Amino acid sequence: MEYTRSTDRLIAELNRLPGVGRKMARRIALHLLELSEEEAGRLAGLIIEVKKKTIHCGRCHNLTETDPCPTCTDEERDRGLLCVVEGPQDLAALEKTGVYRGLYHVLGGYLSPLEGIGPDELKVKELVGRLREGAFREVILGTNPTVEGEATALYLERILKEMEFSVSRLARGVPVGGELEYLDEVTLAGAIENRKKM
Amino acid sequence: MEYTRSTDRLIAELNRLPGVGRKMARRIALHLLELSEEEAGRLAGLIIEVKKKTIHCGRCHNLTETDPCPTCTDEERDRGLLCVVEGPQDLAALEKTGVYRGLYHVLGGYLSPLEGIGPDELKVKELVGRLREGAFREVILGTNPTVEGEATALYLERILKEMEFSVSRLARGVPVGGELEYLDEVTLAGAIENRKKM
Repeated sequence: MEYTRSTDRLIAELNRLPGVGRKMARRIALHLLELSEEEAGRLAGLIIEVKKKTIHCGRCHNLTETDPCPTCTDEERDRGLLCVVEGPQDLAALEKTGVYRGLYHVLGGYLSPLEGIGPDELKVKELVGRLREGAFREVILGTNPTVEGEATALYLERILKEMEFSVSRLARGVPVGGELEYLDEVTLAGAIENRKKM
Repeated sequence: MEYTRSTDRLIAELNRLPGVGRKMARRIALHLLELSEEEAGRLAGLIIEVKKKTIHCGRCHNLTETDPCPTCTDEERDRGLLCVVEGPQDLAALEKTGVYRGLYHVLGGYLSPLEGIGPDELKVKELVGRLREGAFREVILGTNPTVEGEATALYLERILKEMEFSVSRLARGVPVGGELEYLDEVTLAGAIENRKKM
C-alpha cells in the first residue's frame, strides 16, 4: 500500500488510461482528493453519462447522441463526396478546417495484421454497402500518413477502384511551422510533387 | 461542438486535471468511450469512493482511511523522530526507501507569498502543537529541494530552533544516474560538502 487502499486502486485504474503513466496517475489521484465532493461527483457522473448517451452513428459510425448523426442528416452537405477516416478524432480535425463539406465514414481504426486487425474489425463492409447504395462520385481516403494508415488506404483504394469510384488521397506536403531540415524525405518528396504554381 | 455534447463536456472536465492537456483529455475521453459500461462505471465509482473514504489523519495529516492513520499508530516506529514533508507524495517516496522509521508531519504544501500561501494555510500550528506535546528529540525537514521548499525549511528551522529542537535537513547530493556535467552548482557543492569517507 502506497497511499490508502482506495487511492491505490484509483491510481491503478487511472494508470490504465492511454498516456497516463504511474507518476501522472498518482498526481491526478491526489488532485481528485483535493476536489470537493461535488466536483469529483461531476467528473464521475460525466464518465457514466458519456457512456450512456454516446453511440455510433449507423451510417458514418462517428460518435453521436442521435442516430443518424447531425453530419449525416445535414442537408447543406455535399452528398456526392465521402471522406474515409480512421477515427472520430480525425473527423474532428478535418471538420475544424471548415474546408470539407462532404460526408464521412469512420473506419474505427486501421488495418494491422500484427495487431490482428483485419478488414472485418473495421467498418469496411459498411463502407462498401454505403457506396453501393449512395450516389457518391468521389471518395477521399483520409487515413493517417503512418505506415498503418497508408496500408489501409492502399487496401481501400484497390476495392474502390474495382467498384469504379474516383478515389483521392489527402495531399502530402510541408506542415505549417515545419522546418525543411527536420522533415523526412517522403514528406519532402510529396511536397515537391504536389507543388502549387504561384 | 467537437464530438458529442457529453463527450465535449467530459473532455473539458478532464482538461482541468493536472498535466492533462487538451489533446490528452480528448484521447482519454475517446478511450473511455471504448470501455465497457462496467469498466467505465468502475472508474467513476472509484472516484466517488476515494473521496468518501479518504480523510486526513488528525495527527500527521497524511491521507488515510482511519484516523489516526496506520503510520501514527505503528508501535514499531521511533516516536522520537519526526520528518516534516510537503505532501503525501513526498511521504510515500520516503517510505519506499525503507530507511526512515520515525513519524511524519504533512504540511499540505509549501510557503509561497506569491501564491498567497502563508503558515496559516499549512499545518504549521499543528506541527508546533505536536512538538509541544510529543517527546520528539529530532525533527528532519524533508521539504523539496526547490526554492519554495527551501524557504519553507528555513522558516520552520527558525521556529524549531527557538523551541530548542534538534533540526536536520535531507542531504543534498548527486542523484543516482545523474551526470555531473548536467547537475547544477548548488547540488554539486552540496555533494562535495556532504562527501562520505570511503
